Amino acid sequence: MVSEFHPSKLALLTDLYELTMAASYFENNMFEPATFSLFVRKYPPNRHYFVSAGLADVLTFLENFQFTQDDLAYLDTMEMFSPTFLDYLEKLRFEGDVYAIPEGNIFFKNEPILEVTAPIIQAQLVESFIINAINLQTVIATKASRCIYAARGRSLVDFSLRRTQGVDAGIKVARASYIGGFGGTSNTLAGKIYGIPVFGTMAHSYIQCFEHELDAFLAFAHTFPKNAVLLIDTYNTIAGAHKAVNVAKKMQAKGEKLRGVRLDSGDVAKLSKEVRGIFDEAGLKDIMIFASGGLDEFKIAHVVRRGCEIDSFGVGTKMGVSADAPYLDMAYKLVRYAGKPVMKLSPGKITLVDKKQVFRILDSDGKFKRDIIGLRDDHIEGASPLLIPVMAQGRMLGRQPALTEIQKHFLKEFKNLDERYKVLEGPVEEYPVTLSPRLQELQDRVEHQIIEKELGES
Amino acid sequence: MVSEFHPSKLALLTDLYELTMAASYFENNMFEPATFSLFVRKYPPNRHYFVSAGLADVLTFLENFQFTQDDLAYLDTMEMFSPTFLDYLEKLRFEGDVYAIPEGNIFFKNEPILEVTAPIIQAQLVESFIINAINLQTVIATKASRCIYAARGRSLVDFSLRRTQGVDAGIKVARASYIGGFGGTSNTLAGKIYGIPVFGTMAHSYIQCFEHELDAFLAFAHTFPKNAVLLIDTYNTIAGAHKAVNVAKKMQAKGEKLRGVRLDSGDVAKLSKEVRGIFDEAGLKDIMIFASGGLDEFKIAHVVRRGCEIDSFGVGTKMGVSADAPYLDMAYKLVRYAGKPVMKLSPGKITLVDKKQVFRILDSDGKFKRDIIGLRDDHIEGASPLLIPVMAQGRMLGRQPALTEIQKHFLKEFKNLDERYKVLEGPVEEYPVTLSPRLQELQDRVEHQIIEKELGES
Repeated sequence: MVSEFHPSKLALLTDLYELTMAASYFENNMFEPATFSLFVRKYPPNRHYFVSAGLADVLTFLENFQFTQDDLAYLDTMEMFSPTFLDYLEKLRFEGDVYAIPEGNIFFKNEPILEVTAPIIQAQLVESFIINAINLQTVIATKASRCIYAARGRSLVDFSLRRTQGVDAGIKVARASYIGGFGGTSNTLAGKIYGIPVFGTMAHSYIQCFEHELDAFLAFAHTFPKNAVLLIDTYNTIAGAHKAVNVAKKMQAKGEKLRGVRLDSGDVAKLSKEVRGIFDEAGLKDIMIFASGGLDEFKIAHVVRRGCEIDSFGVGTKMGVSADAPYLDMAYKLVRYAGKPVMKLSPGKITLVDKKQVFRILDSDGKFKRDIIGLRDDHIEGASPLLIPVMAQGRMLGRQPALTEIQKHFLKEFKNLDERYKVLEGPVEEYPVTLSPRLQELQDRVEHQIIEKELGES
Repeated sequence: MVSEFHPSKLALLTDLYELTMAASYFENNMFEPATFSLFVRKYPPNRHYFVSAGLADVLTFLENFQFTQDDLAYLDTMEMFSPTFLDYLEKLRFEGDVYAIPEGNIFFKNEPILEVTAPIIQAQLVESFIINAINLQTVIATKASRCIYAARGRSLVDFSLRRTQGVDAGIKVARASYIGGFGGTSNTLAGKIYGIPVFGTMAHSYIQCFEHELDAFLAFAHTFPKNAVLLIDTYNTIAGAHKAVNVAKKMQAKGEKLRGVRLDSGDVAKLSKEVRGIFDEAGLKDIMIFASGGLDEFKIAHVVRRGCEIDSFGVGTKMGVSADAPYLDMAYKLVRYAGKPVMKLSPGKITLVDKKQVFRILDSDGKFKRDIIGLRDDHIEGASPLLIPVMAQGRMLGRQPALTEIQKHFLKEFKNLDERYKVLEGPVEEYPVTLSPRLQELQDRVEHQIIEKELGES
């Protein structure tokens, strides 16, 4: 267990090669400005767009970037770094500029999401954290948006905490799934940190602590006379539903009200209709039905397609780890150094050179038509630039939007993305993204120069 | 970004239903001891065993369990909890007993890995964290062990930090992959926290900051005259290898030594042989060859099978998120309350009742032969119990083993697991795990009682 999670203590959360490179830049007096560009190289299976998330963490990290005395003492024990370099690290802060696509926006492969310009050492050392933060939250916000699409208006709650990949993921999944349209989370700490609505019912263990299931229901209703949601599948869902009717009527008699029931196993589409029937017949039309258990966008879509009487889904593990696509091929690549555009030629991993901008062209009805990746100073008639300046000289620019605003913005944008890119499975023609003529020309020129320079000399 | 990661501040990292249940137990004066059992319900694709990891975090969490004033103030704002319950939570500490399979052991599906016995509220509230911690590290240690098996003696280093699911995962993956047999990590903070060996070379960006690749190699060698590992695929791997020879000879002339090169793209099996040939021909037999780029156990096995001259693999994303099996169906279930064994009947989710023990029977040559899940107080001739007491009345028992010891223990155990359970792909007959006669008898009796009691009354 570690206590090193505070943003001002995360400078050492970096791949060692960032530090060995930094040491060598330092020794070679290389302090020129560098621009790194963050982008996703390709779509994972069944993904045709991405939802940007994680920027807030990156900005907090950059603003607080500094090595602690402990960090420096540890680096010293490695016997790789000179005392002058360690002195330099002690004073090092992040003083760069950042352009980024704000959280809650939709973007596509190869489009820069974030570009950092800073003296090379600063821009290099922050690589591992930047990818880590934006990769995770983008993976999850994208997965969550697919669940939202599948649920066709039913509300979704994040139930994934227990099987997210660690503590930080547990908290960030609650945040990112909320950006992607979820209504809340079961994660109490995330609720406290982010002000996200928190939901909770009961587990099977609660039922099992009582002599009879009915006793458990009555005791829980007694504790929560307005908010009780009863889990009815511990022994048999239909028998549980009849007991819930019994409880609801007793509550009614006292002026109380049963909020709902939860189904957590079996054929929830079919069961929900039977349970709805039992409640309706008893005149209990406003008892809500929640469903959970191994859900993801595919299973939600299946349940919805078959017809169901489910008001809200609790979505757990498979969303919380994005089980079918648990990472993105996201890279942070040097695109400009000391005033010159640069690229590498490694097979299958070519990067777009220089400081860039993403331009989006909308249809007359406001729908996304196509994107153009251009140079930062390109001007493209009738197109809106997606990257905006979010940090200058190491300080955040402007007010950070509230999470509810980010969600609202995302849901608005999501409406403007054509249905064809939202299909959950099967082949889809990619959303059109092209390069501006100036970027294409520069790209070709730099590639040509490098081939001449490097592959002529070997 | 959050600062709530310290173990003494994680009590609120719990699903809200743990708190609503606790409130109801409190109101109903239910403080009897409960036993919860942690186990994995089924094997993910291509897994036939698990490597236990994550216990150290759980014990630290339990020993430090307490709600902060901030937590209580937040819970109060939810308007769900009574002031007397919040007062109770303020004083609440974990005072239970824990049995567990120590870290670095091999276990199988349905076997309890950990059993908590504590007053019901305490045992219930810690559920989310316990599953979260043990699920992640067990997933990763298991994945790492598969990579180790595939590498056939070549050393592996964790390169996954940038794409692990968050900060905590980045650190825990370094730890858990080390338990699973890795030689080190690129994650500098994990190195500092756990004393794991840390490795780092250079990135493409370093090369690109120089006018020529050769200039970059020479500058890096100058900074690290004993430890330099040159990345040679930025423009062309073979051309890069020839430049590395040039650098190595210049270093030799000065009494220095090039440690190695890294291949990060293309057909690394084939390239490694070509590069080895170039070095050997130049009389540079001890330059090491490292390989990285999209590796997992399947790709490592493929490269090794084709023949390669790779001394060490850097294994990143696919190991760090366990891409093909990013979670386990791990559950923490009530098995005993107030002196009585309990179970639920939800379809496909039946639990083994009561306090248990796992017994392992070895062959005459020390190989694992079969396991028996029994009652805690079963005695099985010639079998060793795997669960040991690790916490009593909320305090850890005995010394926590060093990470190197855990790794050593795992590697010894792994030798005793038959090869057939280590195959990377394809169907495998499951390792034999049976129930002891006493457990089977109790299981049947409790199931029968519940069916009578619950399904007779509806």
